[in-house]
Amino acid sequence: MKKISILGSTGSIGTQTLDVIRSDRENFKLIGVSANSSFQKLVNIINEFKPEYAVLNEKSSYDKVEEYCSNKNVNTKILFGIEGLNTIASLENVDIVVTSVVGIVGLVPTIKAIRAGKTIALANKETLVAGGEIVKRELKQNNAKIIPVDSEHGAIFQCLRGNKIENVNKLIVTASGGPFRGKKRSELLDVTVDEALNHPNWQMGRKLTVDSATLMNKGLEVIEAHWLFDMPYEKIQVLVHPESLIHSMVEYKDGSIIAQLGSKDMRLPIQYALNYPERKNKVVDTLDFYSISSLHFEKPDMDTFRPLKLAYEAGKIGGTMPAILNCANEAAVSLFLSGRIKFLDIMDILEDCMNKFERKGDYTLDDILELNRSIKNYVNLKYSYADERIK
Amino acid sequence: MKKISILGSTGSIGTQTLDVIRSDRENFKLIGVSANSSFQKLVNIINEFKPEYAVLNEKSSYDKVEEYCSNKNVNTKILFGIEGLNTIASLENVDIVVTSVVGIVGLVPTIKAIRAGKTIALANKETLVAGGEIVKRELKQNNAKIIPVDSEHGAIFQCLRGNKIENVNKLIVTASGGPFRGKKRSELLDVTVDEALNHPNWQMGRKLTVDSATLMNKGLEVIEAHWLFDMPYEKIQVLVHPESLIHSMVEYKDGSIIAQLGSKDMRLPIQYALNYPERKNKVVDTLDFYSISSLHFEKPDMDTFRPLKLAYEAGKIGGTMPAILNCANEAAVSLFLSGRIKFLDIMDILEDCMNKFERKGDYTLDDILELNRSIKNYVNLKYSYADERIK
Repeated sequence: MKKISILGSTGSIGTQTLDVIRSDRENFKLIGVSANSSFQKLVNIINEFKPEYAVLNEKSSYDKVEEYCSNKNVNTKILFGIEGLNTIASLENVDIVVTSVVGIVGLVPTIKAIRAGKTIALANKETLVAGGEIVKRELKQNNAKIIPVDSEHGAIFQCLRGNKIENVNKLIVTASGGPFRGKKRSELLDVTVDEALNHPNWQMGRKLTVDSATLMNKGLEVIEAHWLFDMPYEKIQVLVHPESLIHSMVEYKDGSIIAQLGSKDMRLPIQYALNYPERKNKVVDTLDFYSISSLHFEKPDMDTFRPLKLAYEAGKIGGTMPAILNCANEAAVSLFLSGRIKFLDIMDILEDCMNKFERKGDYTLDDILELNRSIKNYVNLKYSYADERIK
Repeated sequence: MKKISILGSTGSIGTQTLDVIRSDRENFKLIGVSANSSFQKLVNIINEFKPEYAVLNEKSSYDKVEEYCSNKNVNTKILFGIEGLNTIASLENVDIVVTSVVGIVGLVPTIKAIRAGKTIALANKETLVAGGEIVKRELKQNNAKIIPVDSEHGAIFQCLRGNKIENVNKLIVTASGGPFRGKKRSELLDVTVDEALNHPNWQMGRKLTVDSATLMNKGLEVIEAHWLFDMPYEKIQVLVHPESLIHSMVEYKDGSIIAQLGSKDMRLPIQYALNYPERKNKVVDTLDFYSISSLHFEKPDMDTFRPLKLAYEAGKIGGTMPAILNCANEAAVSLFLSGRIKFLDIMDILEDCMNKFERKGDYTLDDILELNRSIKNYVNLKYSYADERIK
């Protein structure tokens, strides 16, 4: 039986992870869960799965859950904030830590889990983007391992099965192209939040969906792939594939390409990660090729969707530059989602921050966290101009 | 260094196998070669590769090659006929036997190679179709193994890498659909030999190309897949994919599909088989997805292209029924290629033979060879009616 903590249990990936666990109770046991502030969702999880620990990140929700559990005589211990996350990430009886919190907030608990020698089912891409070097060093020192939960990296991980990484010629990361595929810059001037959130293929959280619309998400994935698979940027190709049925591919040096395909259902890579190295309990539909008439491919438009190009640049520059890009993006997307900047401003902010903030070669975890604070402040001060420009 | 005999060195697969060997002389050494009657091609091979043995199947060609070699003081020993084939298939210093002869003639030397414990790079599908049970038994008893060289089975073999066969839900064997894809029976009444030989994707020998046009080739591959991968017929699906870039796929029971893609170049599966388990020396071009705009899929039309349906039926009936189907097909295609029957007659002959000849449950190698002779006689006597119908 595999014992699991989920960091971020009430979001999109967290909910689907619970679905996978629900489908195979004999194989999986839920030990720790966390939520930001969703009282009702967390209480439902506690009642259904009876985990040993539940963490809340927001004080009033913490108080409510705490009170609820003591009134109902529930045995689950309720913890608070980042300390709570760190605790459930490193519990002795946990085998797998699913990190499905969104944003750089996942970095510290992921490091804690690594130091406790856990297997990390990583759905938080910002961790590797911002702290790739640190994470890789810690993995080595602590004999921990990461199994990717993204559909793209999960696909590559499957395509590498039974093969040697040194025989890889190229990783081909597929991209749906997002809701604005084929559009030019001039058509994106007045994009609304709702339009950006209207993803053609995937149901995801808001931040991730905006990242898909700018192609920043694919940029983050390129950097993540670099760290996960020790692959130079020249050997990572992004391929737009609007149907999102080929989840990614690996080209080997003998000219063979291995691809992983499957339904557009995140439970597919989640169950693969949780069951690895076994293949078990199908909770998703299989593909029916008799009803799929065609699959399409395009080169990504990195001039219109500059964040993808910026990600390649930041990755190649290295050091803290990917962290700068990521922090700038988190700040900018947050402003966009609250209606204070325009869609294309996100791209300008990324470029501005990459110019403004100095890249450091060697860096520590504290450097990254400090950088995140500075960039957030800088972006908020300079770009929170909702009244003048948007309304 | 891997030492190689090629049974059938002057045909399409043989020639491409030589290309792979040529590209990596440090890794491969050619020990034995064979040809039916191609004097000049075989002499060129002898001069270039200096094999220890060369076999000819046709007496006058044998005499010419023999004379040529003694005049030129060439060290290659020249052997004759099936005995010669059996010799180069079981030489002590040979590691891999590539069986690229076409038709049931490949069966006996393949068994000899298996008995000598060789690794068989199998490009002769009739061997497994006609003698599947015998071949499987011999493989087990002699600790020999088969690596498939077909693009489809080679693809499946790659897609299974690092996975367990019991986790497979389904094999998806792709098919170009051949030159008559989309046509109805009424449009195939007056098909000429040249039209049947005009395959859209692959350059192959004449027999194999006609088999592609009737979908018999795919039927033979279904039966071959059954034996190669121990897969029940219900779990083998044929998928028409006109671009022939996905060479086949494996669907696992967790809902994931692994596919192998690559150029339409038989040197890809050949080099994979010869290098296995390594991946080496790229002799083929890689695919460029930026220039591949789409891939298409269709359900095969088994009513028009009955041989595929008959192959499923013969496979499920088992015993000697697949051998009956295969022998009938060899005889019928030979008549079609010599202009003595019509294209659609091939299908009628298959059905006639499956009804006419009694299926045996247990069978020996001799039973199969005897069956082949009887069916050939029967088909030739009953159907050689060129003058009345074709001319």
